[in-house]
Amino acid sequence: PNRKVRDAAEAWLVRAYRFAASAGIARVGGPLGAVASGRDGEEPDAIAEADYADLVARMLRLADHAREHGIVELYVEPTPLRREWPWTVAQARRMLADVSAAAVPWKLCVDWGHALFEPVYGGYRARMEPWLAEVGDAIGVIHVQQTDGRYDRHWDFTEAGIVAPEAAAALLRRHGLADRPVFLEVFYPFERDDRSVLDAVRRSATALRSAFI
Amino acid sequence: PNRKVRDAAEAWLVRAYRFAASAGIARVGGPLGAVASGRDGEEPDAIAEADYADLVARMLRLADHAREHGIVELYVEPTPLRREWPWTVAQARRMLADVSAAAVPWKLCVDWGHALFEPVYGGYRARMEPWLAEVGDAIGVIHVQQTDGRYDRHWDFTEAGIVAPEAAAALLRRHGLADRPVFLEVFYPFERDDRSVLDAVRRSATALRSAFI
Ligand SMILES: [Fe+3]
Ligand SMILES: [Fe+3]
Ligand SMILES: [Mn+2]
Ligand SMILES: [Mn+2]
Repeated sequence: PNRKVRDAAEAWLVRAYRFAASAGIARVGGPLGAVASGRDGEEPDAIAEADYADLVARMLRLADHAREHGIVELYVEPTPLRREWPWTVAQARRMLADVSAAAVPWKLCVDWGHALFEPVYGGYRARMEPWLAEVGDAIGVIHVQQTDGRYDRHWDFTEAGIVAPEAAAALLRRHGLADRPVFLEVFYPFERDDRSVLDAVRRSATALRSAFI
Repeated sequence: PNRKVRDAAEAWLVRAYRFAASAGIARVGGPLGAVASGRDGEEPDAIAEADYADLVARMLRLADHAREHGIVELYVEPTPLRREWPWTVAQARRMLADVSAAAVPWKLCVDWGHALFEPVYGGYRARMEPWLAEVGDAIGVIHVQQTDGRYDRHWDFTEAGIVAPEAAAALLRRHGLADRPVFLEVFYPFERDDRSVLDAVRRSATALRSAFI
């Protein structure tokens, strides 16, 4: 991490909070700590402790700014990459504890397709349950997407994949998280015809509504 | 097309030419005419004639600026989308004729995976030959990628697909285009491990070198 790039990112986030507040948006978040890989592509498993401490200090400052602007909650979205932080349940839990004194609460946005990403978590461990069971209290928002677990697909629910909406909704209920807002988060190839995208989003929303509501 | 957005894009391109020239880059290009779809997602087959005339006027002005900054050639990269212009051989030929008096030559950058994109061109017509045969003289640069023809994949050549490097190179020779620079253009999912990307790019470059050189 380069200090000046971090400074620019922190300033950008403060502006983003101000904009969000001015647009009537009281809760803001996203992926957080980008970590460069080596020139040979090597991705370390852990962030350096000094960089981690700097990240936590910035999160505390950001919460001060967020509160000033009227934001009431901030989110970290763990991503399935060693180049971003946090990417495991343990890292997320530690981070939340380290920012527990923040001026506004830092919570988690968990993404179903991130949790199921096998290349990073492994075939048996790429599951949603550990997130719901171990940091469920801290989960403020949930992203759903269809995926095959081989990449972070963000497919819609007209595609075949390993996420079953009814089972996902039941799992949330079982962990006492049925009241959390669930967002469909889908990306499409740019070259796909716009009308077919509109149609697929509509059909996915209908399918999810019947499972989650 | 909104006039102010077009103005901003034109000004951005002039700055890009200036930057390129200052970096020692004498040839610049990319996709060109974005066309909005309707609110219902409908993508018209043809751009409105007035918008097309405006686009051509801007291309002529851009060529003036390019020449001022020392750029010697500009490229249009046809993309397989009705939301960009040009996307067919006939549209590209007409456009090149309409800007033939430009201060620096406007040429084409053709992309193997764009030409093979079936959803737009259809199963029998999604081929590279028409581009090479009908506008070959105007082709200044060639992009190669691996693809399955179902999306504009930009896979590398460690993936299975419908592009055969040896056959592609032979096709270029047959059309007298063996002297054109060929670029590997590949995109990777963000969540893929960096070292595996580096490795795959290296292996693809090796495979292409033996086919094209
Ligand atoms: Fe997400
Ligand atoms: Fe290309
Ligand atoms: Mn994601
Ligand atoms: Mn492309």
